[in-house]
Amino acid sequence: MSYILVTNDDGVYAPGIRALHDAVRHLGRAVIVAPERDKSAVSHALTMNRPLLVRELEPDVHTLDGTPTDCVTIGMNKILPQMPDLLVSGINPGANLGDDISYSGTVSAAIEGTMYGIPSLSFSLAGEAPFDFETAAAVAWKLASMALEFGLPEKTLLNINIPQRPPAMIRGIRFTRQGRRIYKNAIQETYDPWGRKHYWIGGGTVHWSGGDETDEHAVNDGYISVTPIQLDLTNHEGRDFLRHHWRM
Amino acid sequence: MSYILVTNDDGVYAPGIRALHDAVRHLGRAVIVAPERDKSAVSHALTMNRPLLVRELEPDVHTLDGTPTDCVTIGMNKILPQMPDLLVSGINPGANLGDDISYSGTVSAAIEGTMYGIPSLSFSLAGEAPFDFETAAAVAWKLASMALEFGLPEKTLLNINIPQRPPAMIRGIRFTRQGRRIYKNAIQETYDPWGRKHYWIGGGTVHWSGGDETDEHAVNDGYISVTPIQLDLTNHEGRDFLRHHWRM
Repeated sequence: MSYILVTNDDGVYAPGIRALHDAVRHLGRAVIVAPERDKSAVSHALTMNRPLLVRELEPDVHTLDGTPTDCVTIGMNKILPQMPDLLVSGINPGANLGDDISYSGTVSAAIEGTMYGIPSLSFSLAGEAPFDFETAAAVAWKLASMALEFGLPEKTLLNINIPQRPPAMIRGIRFTRQGRRIYKNAIQETYDPWGRKHYWIGGGTVHWSGGDETDEHAVNDGYISVTPIQLDLTNHEGRDFLRHHWRM
Repeated sequence: MSYILVTNDDGVYAPGIRALHDAVRHLGRAVIVAPERDKSAVSHALTMNRPLLVRELEPDVHTLDGTPTDCVTIGMNKILPQMPDLLVSGINPGANLGDDISYSGTVSAAIEGTMYGIPSLSFSLAGEAPFDFETAAAVAWKLASMALEFGLPEKTLLNINIPQRPPAMIRGIRFTRQGRRIYKNAIQETYDPWGRKHYWIGGGTVHWSGGDETDEHAVNDGYISVTPIQLDLTNHEGRDFLRHHWRM
C-alpha cells in the first residue's frame, strides 16, 4: 500500500486540505500533518527554538503548532510508520506563480519532501474567492496518480496551479517555467491610534515577465500549469562569469 | 555616492551586523535595516498580516519587528532615499551551506534584494562559538568592493561562507556549487511538565554529498566559498522529462 503525506500552509481546518485529502485517499493511506493555524507566507521556515506538540484530531489527521516545513519533517520521521511514497501540499486558495513561490509555505512543504527524496507536489487554485476546490481536487488526484506511476525528474518537485473554472473550460496541461513577478507600490502606509506611521506589506500592482512559456501565462490561458522546480540553486554559468570577470 | 543596505537575520544587536556595517561603510553610505529580534531559520517569510513599525536607533541604524525579507523590502522602498547599489546580509555566526540555505534568513534577504535587481551578498562565518568577525569583515569589505566594481551574473546573488581561521591560514577563494546536506535523526524527543511528548527539531548527524566543487568542501579545505545562487528555480531539463514520460 502507498503512503501519502498531506500538508498545507493554511492550517488543518482549511477546506483546501480536506478536498486534497479526500482526493488522494483513493491512491493509498493518506495522512494529514498540517499546521494548527494559518501559516501562509512563512516560506521554508523551520521551528528550532521550542519543542512542538503533535495532536491527533481524528484518525490520520494530525496537527502541530508550527510551520509546513515542521509538519513535513515531523510527519515523515515521527508520525508515519514508514517514509511516504508521495507528498502532496495544498490545495492553496490562490495561485503560487513566478517569484512568489519563494515566499510560499505550500511550495516549501514540497521542497522539504523533495530533500528527503520523496516525490512531492504542490497544488494551488488560481482564482479568487469564493473558492471551489472540486475541480482542482479531481486534477490533484489525476496528477498524484501520474507522479506515482511515472515518477518525477530527480531532486525536483512540481509546482501545480489549476485555474478556477469549470472542468470543460480547462484546456489541458502545460509544462511551464517559473515566471518573473514584479510588484510596484506593494507597501501601504497606515497610522496606529497614537499617530505613528506603520508600513503594511501587500497590495500594489503586479507586472509579469518571462515569456509565453511561464506558469502565469499558462494559467491565464486556461491551462493547468506544472512547473518542475529543482533543489540545486547554483547558477552554474555564473561560476564562469565570476572566474573570468572578478580579478583578485 | 554608493548606497549600501545592510541587514541580517540575527537582529540589529548582533555583533555580526555591526562588524559588517563597519566594514562596508568605507564603500559608501551604509544603512542598517534589521529585525529587532533573532529571526534565524525564518527563511524567506514575509509579514503581511499586520503593519510594521520602524524605529531609528541611531543615524543610519533602523529596526522593525519583522523578518529579514520585511527589512529588505521596507528598507529599499521606504527608508533609503534611493534604491541601493548593493545589499549585504550577515555576518551570520555559523555557516550557510548546501540545502540549509533554503531555511536561512541571511540568504533570503539577499534573494529579496536580487528580486529588486540589486547586487546582493550573503555573508556567513563558518565555524563555532566563540565567533570572531574581524577576518570575515575584512573579506566582506573586499568582496563587496569587487561586486561594486565587476558586477554579478544576472538575477544571481552570492552566498559567501568564510572559514573562521587566522587570515594567513585562509587559502583563497573558490567559486563553488551548492552541496547536498542530509540530516539523520535531527528530531529529539522531550517531555513537558505534564508528561506529554514533544518533538524538538535540531541536532542529529550530518552527511554531505555533491562532489569536491561544493561550498562545504571549499570551507573545510580552508577556502572562502562563493556560490552564485539564481532566482529561476525551474528544472528546464525536467520539463522534457515530463513531456516524454507522463502519458496523459
